[in-house]
Amino acid sequence: MLHAMRYSKYFVPTLRDDPADAEVISHKLLLRAGFIRRVTSGVYDYLPIGLRVLRKIEAVVREEMDRSGAQELLMPTVQPTELWNKSGRLEKYGPELLRFNDRHNHESCLGPTHEEVICDLVSRELRSYKQLPMNLYQVQTKFRDEIRPRFGLMRGREFMMKDAYSFHADAECLSKEYQNMFDTYCRIFTRLGLKFRPVEADTGSIGGNNSHEFHVLAESGEDLIAHCSSCEYAANVEKAVSSRSMPQSEPGELTLVDTPNATSAEEVSAFLNCDIAQLVKTLVYRAVGGENDGEIVAACLRGDDQLQEIKLAHAIGADSVELASDAEVISIGGITGFVGPAGLSARVIIDDSLKAASGLVAGANKLDTHMTGLDVARDLGDVVFTDLRETRAGDSCGKCGAAMELSRGIEVGHVFELGTRYAEPMEVLFQDQQGKRAVATMGCYGIGVSRLMAAVVEQCNDDSGICWPANLAPFQVSLITMGKSEAVIEASEQVYSQLIESGVEVLWDDRKESPGVKFKDAELIGMPVQVVVADRSLKEGLAEMGVRGGSRQSMPIGEVAAAAIMQLKKDSA
Amino acid sequence: MLHAMRYSKYFVPTLRDDPADAEVISHKLLLRAGFIRRVTSGVYDYLPIGLRVLRKIEAVVREEMDRSGAQELLMPTVQPTELWNKSGRLEKYGPELLRFNDRHNHESCLGPTHEEVICDLVSRELRSYKQLPMNLYQVQTKFRDEIRPRFGLMRGREFMMKDAYSFHADAECLSKEYQNMFDTYCRIFTRLGLKFRPVEADTGSIGGNNSHEFHVLAESGEDLIAHCSSCEYAANVEKAVSSRSMPQSEPGELTLVDTPNATSAEEVSAFLNCDIAQLVKTLVYRAVGGENDGEIVAACLRGDDQLQEIKLAHAIGADSVELASDAEVISIGGITGFVGPAGLSARVIIDDSLKAASGLVAGANKLDTHMTGLDVARDLGDVVFTDLRETRAGDSCGKCGAAMELSRGIEVGHVFELGTRYAEPMEVLFQDQQGKRAVATMGCYGIGVSRLMAAVVEQCNDDSGICWPANLAPFQVSLITMGKSEAVIEASEQVYSQLIESGVEVLWDDRKESPGVKFKDAELIGMPVQVVVADRSLKEGLAEMGVRGGSRQSMPIGEVAAAAIMQLKKDSA
Repeated sequence: MLHAMRYSKYFVPTLRDDPADAEVISHKLLLRAGFIRRVTSGVYDYLPIGLRVLRKIEAVVREEMDRSGAQELLMPTVQPTELWNKSGRLEKYGPELLRFNDRHNHESCLGPTHEEVICDLVSRELRSYKQLPMNLYQVQTKFRDEIRPRFGLMRGREFMMKDAYSFHADAECLSKEYQNMFDTYCRIFTRLGLKFRPVEADTGSIGGNNSHEFHVLAESGEDLIAHCSSCEYAANVEKAVSSRSMPQSEPGELTLVDTPNATSAEEVSAFLNCDIAQLVKTLVYRAVGGENDGEIVAACLRGDDQLQEIKLAHAIGADSVELASDAEVISIGGITGFVGPAGLSARVIIDDSLKAASGLVAGANKLDTHMTGLDVARDLGDVVFTDLRETRAGDSCGKCGAAMELSRGIEVGHVFELGTRYAEPMEVLFQDQQGKRAVATMGCYGIGVSRLMAAVVEQCNDDSGICWPANLAPFQVSLITMGKSEAVIEASEQVYSQLIESGVEVLWDDRKESPGVKFKDAELIGMPVQVVVADRSLKEGLAEMGVRGGSRQSMPIGEVAAAAIMQLKKDSA
Repeated sequence: MLHAMRYSKYFVPTLRDDPADAEVISHKLLLRAGFIRRVTSGVYDYLPIGLRVLRKIEAVVREEMDRSGAQELLMPTVQPTELWNKSGRLEKYGPELLRFNDRHNHESCLGPTHEEVICDLVSRELRSYKQLPMNLYQVQTKFRDEIRPRFGLMRGREFMMKDAYSFHADAECLSKEYQNMFDTYCRIFTRLGLKFRPVEADTGSIGGNNSHEFHVLAESGEDLIAHCSSCEYAANVEKAVSSRSMPQSEPGELTLVDTPNATSAEEVSAFLNCDIAQLVKTLVYRAVGGENDGEIVAACLRGDDQLQEIKLAHAIGADSVELASDAEVISIGGITGFVGPAGLSARVIIDDSLKAASGLVAGANKLDTHMTGLDVARDLGDVVFTDLRETRAGDSCGKCGAAMELSRGIEVGHVFELGTRYAEPMEVLFQDQQGKRAVATMGCYGIGVSRLMAAVVEQCNDDSGICWPANLAPFQVSLITMGKSEAVIEASEQVYSQLIESGVEVLWDDRKESPGVKFKDAELIGMPVQVVVADRSLKEGLAEMGVRGGSRQSMPIGEVAAAAIMQLKKDSA
């Protein structure tokens, strides 16, 4: 990567106005400042200045991965789908897996992740426990055919990812590497200058056991994360466990009451004049995928709680769940709007919060009718209790009881203990110390490299543009020439050379543009240090140096390069 | 990239035997030495040691491209085919362009090259001649759905390419950049230690004017290149122009002669007892693509010459040509086996060598009949003369007349003057100095980065394995420990540290393998310098240093690291 560039010869097409189709700040600024351009939905060009930043992020990721003991390799973009068939994930992965036939009618796909390919590789080379553990990683272009690509680099279809896969002889060794990767990720995100948070995560379609996501905290984040105000507990709301106290209520007799047209929790509580927390909300779902694919189940939770569908899917052993149709509700003896847990011919899954509750109101599985005085323990037979609800701000932490808080996050990293989920079907086998054939235990570890570029901008910007940390900025110094005299050009060129010789990355704005345009572009692009050589002050032998967005100091022109270097040293200290 | 690695913890699966499906030496050695593994037809994993070499090749390419003034960006793998429609190349490119529909039924393709994407980008940002010239390049993964992927990295489907595209206000500026890139390519291939040759090239389906290919000379090369034994002239045989003297012959009368069952040039010359060079070979072809798509034409050349089909395609304005069917031959008044140029109802294209020839033998367009005494100028009406024949060794150079030679080459680079072939349909427009709208003039410049890895191995190998040049070797030094004593491990570790501290890349073979296995692997992988620390000689305070494939010197253990460094310096000088 070249250290220095003259703006007049550099392809940095900046825009004065926000592009119409950009919603979040990183998308707007990366387009406006000439870092990226859209090719097609969710697919971008990285322009020269954008590629510089991407490469710096990659370099930090690589350095820390290498330091962790992982080994870099490179797997292909195009994968044969027969490997996905073998792992059992071909149909399960869904339409984000872009599949196609080549000219010989062999089906391939664009790799959205590489568990299959790495297992195929390692299964052919692994012989003995002596070769284990090993952790193999790559920084590579991935493709996921997102239904709604959006937010620029934050949810693209083609993107850059660091993915690592570790192989172990036993679970204990995997745990150690999991912790090693966890620590490595913390180092990476710290070096990138990010405010981030590791949270417990659902393992999703990738399968497996222990899992953490790393979230960059930002309002524009697509994920909701719950974290305790007191202890270290933090989790994606898809997974977060918390509780709220149940309002006291008198146990009573089970009574049918007419509730004409009152179907929602709000309507029923208004009609019966009861606390919405006393209501049992019963939702009927169909299992999608998994061993009980197609099963109709009922899920119950407090009237003022929201169901977290992923929790329900896990509880019933499905890949996901979909709301049942009216006909499916009837098929289990319910009726839409008036479903309740009593007397349904289906599995009933009840949120933990209702375990010992009594005096509840629930649907009576009869048109325009509810029942009051429901006692869960007394009135319901064979039901399953589990955590189904979505954590809300103010809930009690599942670990320490203090109040939970919610934040939005951008998921930039994810670590998984996969166990043998892939190694078993892909036959990643080895001879163990006792000479027996055993299945390798795996972990996998991803970082969204191009998404990180957007995440940094989400956290580091102001009204004028991007405020890159010095180690990620496309250049460290913005050298701005004001005026057209031979003297000012010559003096600028000298400062430019001094900076280059000191190994400082510098973008010299030598264009024939007005000072206003030059300053606007410098602030927009976001180099941390600015040096200004202007005709007027040069006559007194002076130039200026300052940090982006701050004030500049005047000083003798001969000292300005050294001052810029000192400033950079101070910033990185 | 880490400087050092312990073999016991490193994923380098070497093979004792040549893999069955590998035909050329580079494919065999890169598989055997653990550099690559096949994923599916024409698609490979780069294992850690292979990726190191690939990165070093990339680095040389980048350094020289940056030095040339080109700017690096990164375009996507997936391209919308609407761009290819706009450029007019969608159908023309053929089945190597892998096309597919995404989940929203938009058609995309895997980029085999990026003229369309770069033109689309630049057309949106280019305003004025002041922004020109510019040369934008990337190092990126490409996909071409080759009908017969083969020879490992030499003709893969997914491969790494450096592609550059330059934009200019006029042809003169393009010529300058073309020469700049030509020189840059010479520097790159020289730094990679290759014996190479730039040759004039056909511009093929990419279109355009001036073009050179860069060939690495190797027996396994898929291309045949013709070069003069005296002057600088060299060209791909697809394009090479040369001549041979025509045998003297008496002009005679046109006479029909019976030639029962004699259809090939050899059979007719034997039957009529005449020099095969006196025969006119007439081949009937169908034009494919272009403005005369489907036209049936006849091509004539000397009986002992071979037709170069690409030359014929150019001569008739077609994308390519295919041999006509018997029915098509009849449709123009010929009959297969006895076709001649006289009296055909089709365009007749005649090789230049026959321009003034007389006393020739040709098919009479009548079963079992030929004609003798044919005089091209006298007997044939409206025909076209052009260069159609394939150059053969010993022909006279088209430039200086000296003897031509033929060599096989691996095409590793290609530079084109595209002109406005893409810029015009893609509307890459700018305001020129006179304030008028003008179409940009383009060049494009490719290097097969992953193919270069194979090309280097084709030139640098011996019976034991690969002989990497020091600047491309995965590591520079192979440190081999012989024995298991604490002393030998400790001494090895010390040498290892000394080498690391000096910035030398070293692979330490610390495995519990026999010396035979270790030496075999070291030679196979091909690090240029070897250091051996062995139990026996260590007792006398000695270790050994030598170059791969050469003899080793014994020296005090304390001096061996410094000796290895000296050796590397000597090699790179």
